[in-house]
This record gives sequence, structure tokens and C-alpha cells, in this order.
Amino acid sequence: MADNVKDYLKELVAFQSISSDESMSDTSRRTAEFIVSKLQKIGVESKILENLVEGKNPLILGIFGFDPHKKTIMCYCHYDVQPAAKEDGWDTDPFELIEQEGYLFGRGASDDKGPIAATYFAIKELLDEGDLPVNVAFLYEGEEESGSGGFEETVSANRDFFGKIDGLLILDGGWFGDKRPSLGYGTRGVTYMGIEISGPKQDVHSGAGGSMFEPMDDLIKLMSNLKNPEGKILINGFYDKVNRLTDEEIKLYDDIEFDLDAYKKHYGIEQLPSTDSKELLMNMWRYPSLSLHGIEGAFSGPRAKTVIPSKVIGKVSMRLVPDQDPEEIAELFEKYIRKEFEKLESGNKLNFQKIVVGDWWYGDPNNDLFRAGIRAMEDYWHINPSLIRGGGSVPIIPFMEKIFDAPAMGPGIGQSTDGAHSQNERIRIKNLEGGTEVIKLLLKNLK
Amino acid sequence: MADNVKDYLKELVAFQSISSDESMSDTSRRTAEFIVSKLQKIGVESKILENLVEGKNPLILGIFGFDPHKKTIMCYCHYDVQPAAKEDGWDTDPFELIEQEGYLFGRGASDDKGPIAATYFAIKELLDEGDLPVNVAFLYEGEEESGSGGFEETVSANRDFFGKIDGLLILDGGWFGDKRPSLGYGTRGVTYMGIEISGPKQDVHSGAGGSMFEPMDDLIKLMSNLKNPEGKILINGFYDKVNRLTDEEIKLYDDIEFDLDAYKKHYGIEQLPSTDSKELLMNMWRYPSLSLHGIEGAFSGPRAKTVIPSKVIGKVSMRLVPDQDPEEIAELFEKYIRKEFEKLESGNKLNFQKIVVGDWWYGDPNNDLFRAGIRAMEDYWHINPSLIRGGGSVPIIPFMEKIFDAPAMGPGIGQSTDGAHSQNERIRIKNLEGGTEVIKLLLKNLK
Repeated sequence: MADNVKDYLKELVAFQSISSDESMSDTSRRTAEFIVSKLQKIGVESKILENLVEGKNPLILGIFGFDPHKKTIMCYCHYDVQPAAKEDGWDTDPFELIEQEGYLFGRGASDDKGPIAATYFAIKELLDEGDLPVNVAFLYEGEEESGSGGFEETVSANRDFFGKIDGLLILDGGWFGDKRPSLGYGTRGVTYMGIEISGPKQDVHSGAGGSMFEPMDDLIKLMSNLKNPEGKILINGFYDKVNRLTDEEIKLYDDIEFDLDAYKKHYGIEQLPSTDSKELLMNMWRYPSLSLHGIEGAFSGPRAKTVIPSKVIGKVSMRLVPDQDPEEIAELFEKYIRKEFEKLESGNKLNFQKIVVGDWWYGDPNNDLFRAGIRAMEDYWHINPSLIRGGGSVPIIPFMEKIFDAPAMGPGIGQSTDGAHSQNERIRIKNLEGGTEVIKLLLKNLK
Repeated sequence: MADNVKDYLKELVAFQSISSDESMSDTSRRTAEFIVSKLQKIGVESKILENLVEGKNPLILGIFGFDPHKKTIMCYCHYDVQPAAKEDGWDTDPFELIEQEGYLFGRGASDDKGPIAATYFAIKELLDEGDLPVNVAFLYEGEEESGSGGFEETVSANRDFFGKIDGLLILDGGWFGDKRPSLGYGTRGVTYMGIEISGPKQDVHSGAGGSMFEPMDDLIKLMSNLKNPEGKILINGFYDKVNRLTDEEIKLYDDIEFDLDAYKKHYGIEQLPSTDSKELLMNMWRYPSLSLHGIEGAFSGPRAKTVIPSKVIGKVSMRLVPDQDPEEIAELFEKYIRKEFEKLESGNKLNFQKIVVGDWWYGDPNNDLFRAGIRAMEDYWHINPSLIRGGGSVPIIPFMEKIFDAPAMGPGIGQSTDGAHSQNERIRIKNLEGGTEVIKLLLKNLK
């Protein structure tokens, strides 16, 4: 058995708990069972909770301590990971945790198995020290990377497993940058759509080119008309509910160091859409964006395949901000695409897939929870943390705030350069161990 | 051992000789060895010829008869096939030939293993009958579906294996439609390009959306700007060398039955780019076209993946006609894309892949070869054949005409509805058996 945070993480990374790959659902279940058995070993009342949506990975519940005079703090993590394969450009097997120069490399090392390991050892050590300052609740899921399918239904139906909750620690995110710890107070929402164009009933040899309206022509045209050259999203009404920037909000950005040259260097980019670091941060955190991810059904291999694909599905996601409504954005998206599609007059068929819809989160960095977090980070790292938002989406945070009637906070464990979702994902060992200590201090501060 | 054309085809289809899949190269070699051993059994001096380009599948050479007083007719086929998998939507295992209601289903049944089987039995039966009216040469390849890599180099270096050649039978194509046999006198050329856009050095979580210029945005924009809404190709100078339509050429189309309703029904299409059957045929045969095939490097799976791909390669092919020069078209393409890319000012990097470049073929339907072919088809099928062109590309035909100093002709074996390159590829048993008989009659006519 692993008796330190690195060894435990190594065991977790070895599970290929890829939620987007249905063939891995048995592996995901075994991951959950493994985590439950670990929690049980230190006395947590923990169990697997079947996902109410069929085919989705189970959740994990846990509680330690039922002292009504103590606060109850809930920890959220996810045990599923993004897909990864050596062929994608990894230097090592993504499912074998490799230590190198102070870092641990492996899929999920930072997102989000590192935080699971850190949380486990924080609670274990507090128990070993004989002083758990608060009651601790655990709520882990295995579908975060695929839109947290079934989370809301399953948690809603099992709300009563937990009693009163006083604060939510969302342990799924890293520092902003490499040097300074961070506490997250917001994430963007997401609406992830598929634009499905179908034409001929089966693929056609492209020697027939010129004799039919090809679905790819329609799709590429539609995908190209979503943004103007400056990056402004062209969907009618898209920006209507984006909150105006206030003076108070601008001040929050004054305290954040964001080195554009380092950012460019990290990603190997020569040019950014803005040369103003605040503006670029706001583009990522407090303004919406739209990304084109790819096409399902079209040729995607190397070399050549000479067919006209019969049905193609363009994948487009939009990151959303207060007060945009993700469901309304899906409607505006469909309406806009429908209108553009009609102009094409191709006789092909248009359908939509609403693949992921999730709310943004906008917390209050002045409450008790944040005060406890800021102090814990200052005490351990000897530097005051940045208060940050995230460009990504954790739609279950606003849901949890509502159902548990408690504020959320996102203490960063890894670093922003860890490469979550990317090749050679990693976590710094100092962050993994520091994360453990910060969670301990934070819980003590909440006593 | 197979002693009829169906059984032989069943044996051929079982080989997964997919030339675009390098892991199948051993299988491809075994396919070639199998064909050689069959030819040797009926007395053909046949052998494997290593492809001079490394990693490309070998060719097959063969000769029967060295009578200097007879003509020598060369048969061309290819033993490689397009990729196929049951998951793509096949009703049966694509590599097991299944007979159903007068058809044989399987990858390569029509393109191009059916013709290999028909040719083999035609020669075998003529030999059994004791009267081979001409000398017969065989030149088969295993890279046709991947651009005939190494064919020109290898054949050029081995030109002397064959003596004088008087005619080329290109046995790689079907009837035009289902009812009337056809003889091909032309194919379009092809320039197949990859537009490679690279930005960040690795994939990025799309939560960063808004903070960088995404390669997919550039690529989709470039791909969308290749044609106008009417389908006209926008590359500067693209149409400059397309031959004007002559009155004589128009007449060739008068004799061709092309039922637009049947065409629409076959492909399950509701609307065509033209309601005039001659115009639509010309779009496919004598005018160029451009197809967007897909994107390498972008997300292509089902559901969602929330990354900004770091490097994406758009696959675009252009079908070309007399007197367009495929190499020049590649240059015009690059020049046009470069110019459009500069307008984007994204700071991303642009590169090109020239994946396939092949010439068009334009034969003379009034020569001896065609006269022999027309008569053979009339005698067997009791209907005069259509003289047709093809929208696809067989760039080795103009090459063979040149190096063997002989005219080519494309006798159709299967039907245009066979679904070459598509799911549930098939050949009608009557066509397979009729093809055998027509080849026999044709060779007799050439005596």
C-alpha cells in the first residue's frame, strides 16, 4: 500500500479512467472502488454511488465526523481523465507516473488525481495527529471530463446522505502561473454543440466531385462564419447578457502577475490576440470565447483518402460568462446556424447535437472560506495567493453551491503549466506535497 | 483451389490489402504472391517486382506468349483496396465475400479484385480452348488507392521486361450506370494537398479560448475560401488551362443515358447542383472539382473533447482536366492559400503537404482498340456500350500510354452503383462473369 502521496498518485494514474471512452467504464469503476477502499482504511464512511444516468461512471460519497458543533466542509475531486496515448506525442507512457527533475508526469497527475492524493493525505495526517478540526464530506465523480453526466441527477437524489454543509472545496484546478498559489472564485460556463450535416446516404468516391453538394462544404462554411477576423462571435444576441466590466472588478486584475512573454514561450506562440496582459486575461476569464475542435465523420488520418464523407459533425464549444444562459446560447447558436445554412441552399440536412451545457460560476472572494484559504496559503507558501478565475468550465460548482446552500472556493494544487488535457501532463512534487499541507491548514483555519 | 471466378474473388477479398495502412504491408505482399502463384499455374511467366520506393507495395509482372506476329495486349489491375471496417457501416464483414441476390459484397469486389478475377479466368479459358489470339502482358500494382506510389519509377526501370506493347486494357472501372456496358476514354487528374497550420507547441485546454489564435480558426477559414457559394473554385488561374467545350465533344454526351432521378435516389440526395443531366455529367467528367476531405490532428471522435489542437492539417483534393497541369495547380493552390493566410495575421505557421499529384487521361475512342472493345461488348451484351469518362483519377494511364507507346482503353467490369470506396461495396455476378467473356471476345477481336 502506498504510504506517501507520490506512491498513491502513481497507483491512481495507472488506472485508465477515461470517461469519454466507453470501453474504459470497467476501469473507471475499479478506480472508484480503489479510492473508496483507501478512504475506508482511514475510517471515512465511504461508498460507491451508482450514477443515475445509465452508462455513466459512478460517484464516490464519504463522510468523516458527525460533530454538530463543527462545520462540515465538502471536498470535490474527479477521478476521470482526458484521453491519452503515447502516439499523441507523449514522451513516456501516459498511464505510468514517471518522476523527473522534481515533477511527476502522467495523465491525471495534475487534473485531477494529484488533488485526490493530496486531499487523502491531508485528512489522513490530521487524523493521525488526532485533531480533525471540521467534519469532512467527500463527493467525487468520474465524468467531469465528459460534462459531468448524471452528476446533478445523482447528487440531487442523494442530497440527504450529507447533512448541513458549510463550505465547498473544489479541488480541481491549479495555480495561475508557476510561482504563486491561487484561489479560484470563478469559472466560465460552456455550451458544446455538434453541427451535423448529412447528404448522400453513404460515403462517395470523390471522383463524383462536381456532381453533388458535399456536406463538408456546408459544414466548413458554417464553421467559418461563427467568428469575424477579430475573433468576435457573430451569433446574434450572443453578447447581450455579458455583464459590464466594473471598476471593482478591474481592481482584482491589478494584483495578478501575468507575464505575456512567459505565456507565449510556454505555448510556443509568437503572437497573441492582445499585447495587454489584463485584456488577455479578461478574454480568457470574463469574456466568452468560441473554439472549433474538429469534425466527426470526415477523414482524419494521415496521407490521403479520396471520399466525400456522407455525414459530418462539426464540434464547436463556447465558453460563457455571467449572466449568459448556456441553454439560451444553445438556442441562439442553432437559430444562427439554421439561418446561415438556409442561405447555402444545398439540399443537405442539418441537425444539432447539444453535447455539453454547463453553467459558469462566480463566487465571493471576501467570505470566510476565502479568508481561511488565503491565510493557509500565506502561512505555507509565505506569499499571498492570487484570486483568479478560470477559462475552463466546472459546471457542477454552481449546482453544488445551490443544492448544498454553501459557498465554493477553488484552492489551486498544481500549476497552470502542468498541461492538463495535453501531452506530458505533470505536477510538481512540491505542489503535491504543499497541497496536502495547505488543505490541512485551511481546515484548521475553518475550525 | 478456386476453379471459378466467384471462388477466386472470395480468396482475393479475404486479403486486407489496404495500401493506406502501413501495418498491412505484409498482407499486401501475400496478396501479390498469391496472384503470381495463380498466374504461374496457368503458365504465365509471372513474378513479384519490388517497388523501388521503400515501404510501398510490390508490383506484379507477367507475360504469356512471345509470338512476334501477334499483338501484345497489356492488362492493368490493382490488388490494393480502400480501408474498410464493419464499424464504418458495413452490413457484413468487408473482408468476407458474401453472395446475396445476384451480388457479391466485400471490399474490393468491384474495385479492383473483381477485374483481377475476371481477367485471370478470361486468359485461363482462352488457354483451355487452345487459342490465345494475342500475347498478353500483366502489370498489376498494390498502391493505386494511395496514389500509385513508386509505380512510375519501378515500371520505368523495368520497361524492358516487356517487349513491344500494342494496347493497354485498364481494368479498373465499372459501367456507367447499371444497364449498359461502358468503355472509358478518359479520367480526371488529381492534386491532393494538405494545408498544415501549427500554433501552440502542444494541444491546449480550450479553457484558454480567447487568449490565443487557434490553428483551427485559420484552417477552417482557409478551407472555406476555396470555392464560392456556386461551387466555383477561387484559386487564381485555376481554370486558365481548362479546354473549351467543342461541338464534337458535346455529341459524345448525346448518346449517354444519365437518369438524374436514379442518380439522386442511388445516393439518397434530394437536390443536385444542376438539373441538366449533360451539364452534371460534364461537371463530373470534363470540368474540374474540389473536395474537402477532412482534418488530421483535430478531434474526430464522438461526444466532446475540449482541446485547442496545436497542429491541424486540412485535406483538400482537386480533380483536374485537359489541359490543366497538376504540378502547376499545386503551385497555384499554395500561392492562393499563402495569400489568404497572410490576411489572417494570426502568427501561426503555414506549411503544405503535396500528397498526391496525378495526370488526367484523354484517349481516342475511334482507334482499333476501342473498335474491338465496342464490338466485344455489343456481341456479348447485345447493346452498344457507352463511351465514358471518369470523374476519378488513374494517373498511371497517361504514364503507361507514354512509356509503352500504346493507346489505353478502360473496359468496365462492374457497375457504377457498386459503391467502390464506400460501405457495402459489391459486384453483380452477371458482370463478373460477363466481364470474363468480354475480355475473351475483345482479345479475339484484336487478333
